[in-house]
Amino acid sequence: MLNILFAANASRWSQYQVPLRRAFDAAGLKVTLFTETDAPETVDYIIYAPNGAVSDFTPFTGCKAVLGLWAGVEKIVGNTTLTQPLCRMVDSGLEEGMVEWVTGHVLRHHLGMDAHILHQNGVWEPVAPPLARDRTVAILGLGELGRACAQALAALRFNVLGWSRSPKDVPGVTCLSGEDGLDKALSLAEIVVLLLPQTPETENLLNAARLARLPEGAVIINPGRGPLIDDDALLAALDAGHIGHATLDVFRVEPLPPAHPFWAHPKVTVTPHIASETRPDSASRVIAENIRRGEAGEPFLFLVDRAKGY
Amino acid sequence: MLNILFAANASRWSQYQVPLRRAFDAAGLKVTLFTETDAPETVDYIIYAPNGAVSDFTPFTGCKAVLGLWAGVEKIVGNTTLTQPLCRMVDSGLEEGMVEWVTGHVLRHHLGMDAHILHQNGVWEPVAPPLARDRTVAILGLGELGRACAQALAALRFNVLGWSRSPKDVPGVTCLSGEDGLDKALSLAEIVVLLLPQTPETENLLNAARLARLPEGAVIINPGRGPLIDDDALLAALDAGHIGHATLDVFRVEPLPPAHPFWAHPKVTVTPHIASETRPDSASRVIAENIRRGEAGEPFLFLVDRAKGY
Repeated sequence: MLNILFAANASRWSQYQVPLRRAFDAAGLKVTLFTETDAPETVDYIIYAPNGAVSDFTPFTGCKAVLGLWAGVEKIVGNTTLTQPLCRMVDSGLEEGMVEWVTGHVLRHHLGMDAHILHQNGVWEPVAPPLARDRTVAILGLGELGRACAQALAALRFNVLGWSRSPKDVPGVTCLSGEDGLDKALSLAEIVVLLLPQTPETENLLNAARLARLPEGAVIINPGRGPLIDDDALLAALDAGHIGHATLDVFRVEPLPPAHPFWAHPKVTVTPHIASETRPDSASRVIAENIRRGEAGEPFLFLVDRAKGY
Repeated sequence: MLNILFAANASRWSQYQVPLRRAFDAAGLKVTLFTETDAPETVDYIIYAPNGAVSDFTPFTGCKAVLGLWAGVEKIVGNTTLTQPLCRMVDSGLEEGMVEWVTGHVLRHHLGMDAHILHQNGVWEPVAPPLARDRTVAILGLGELGRACAQALAALRFNVLGWSRSPKDVPGVTCLSGEDGLDKALSLAEIVVLLLPQTPETENLLNAARLARLPEGAVIINPGRGPLIDDDALLAALDAGHIGHATLDVFRVEPLPPAHPFWAHPKVTVTPHIASETRPDSASRVIAENIRRGEAGEPFLFLVDRAKGY
């Protein structure tokens, strides 16, 4: 019998309790699942989210791994009390939702939909948009989510550039890397999608200098992490007319405060961190599979590299 | 030397003149291309659009085929002076543009984008949309365009139903046919895309009774032909709240008159017949290939069945 502590917030517990039991049963795992314990040393695995109660992992002396419910680990990766293996959540539901949101918003900007949604003024101006094959989209970040989005856009025949810090290879996508590669990607991208992890290296990646490299009228789409963008530099570039539009799903402070200038800016679309979310059914299967692996002595899926930070 | 009459309107001539010559050269065809002639009996092929000058084909006694520039042939198929083979335009550029427009507007409605584009009110309400796999989209019409759109949506994991009058088979798509199949498709479709040809049988296909079969809140997307929908029945179903939204690209009268109620209706998005258009480069290659086939005695591509009307 394994002791498993569910350390996310209470609303998650009500969503996950049944799917987790179902996934443990399906994996043949005998499990006691609880949200509080007086005997932390007996806990075998911790299911974790940063908005739960656990922040000091010291008492969990028998814990074999911490299994995150979030794709991003920037809020835990620097926690020095955490000495056990840490796994990120890579959930097929999260990936599917992200592909849909990114593909939808890229097509929205590609097709110029906002003009039709906002201005039904009786004026018939039939100008067809260019074809996707003549539109360059850059995806910054080629982890699981970036790669999936890049391939979905390539399947629609967009000219897709993918950028990552270290070289990667994605079929159908022109892959660039390093500082020179970033300069090149930015100089060509009519639409830029940010799907990088949040690390000290990626904070303010899209600063004033890099925004200036983008072609006139370029569109920014950020479903990644708020701090990837220098907010003030983005607002200045929008006001100057150099950047055409920004569709932002993530922010340095969430909920985005009502007085933040992004809400009122005519060239910014705010969406309330809905681009994608972990889905309890598929995420529970990932958790169960990792516990099965841990018990079988097999390597964990989606193990975080603590030095890289993701 | 072949004599080829270009019988579309003058603005098309300026777009097509160079791409056609390039395509004829590439196909090894020796051609005299002109827009007017005093010797109609010497014309070998006519490149045709309904908004050009030719409507009586009787004088073209030596003409081997009429090669349309439009995908829809409802304005010519009943012309009794036309006794030669008639070919529709099936253009890869037109198909690509249609796939992009349909995929974009399906994702727009699937993701509930309009709420974010129209209402940036500072209220943070994070409700993620369902996954595409839990969203049913019906494509009515499984010709080249319908099939391409159905497959693009299936690749994004939408639950896609395809309907056509006679049974068809499209990989990854649940294909239905006949009257019973139409009833079933409509009863399940949260989003309906109309890509049927305009024929006497399809006029007012989406009438009051069929609109009533759709689930509450269903969305209509029409990039096909205006007369497929009974406009008054649609307006009534929108006003009654039964239909959630209609995005319409084609109309019985185009340009859609400024006073038409579609323009001002809050649940209608009008786009000015831009979902897709024939692209001169790729369309010219189709024309050249059909002339090459005609001269070689090979069957024409995209030959219209005059009895069916498409």
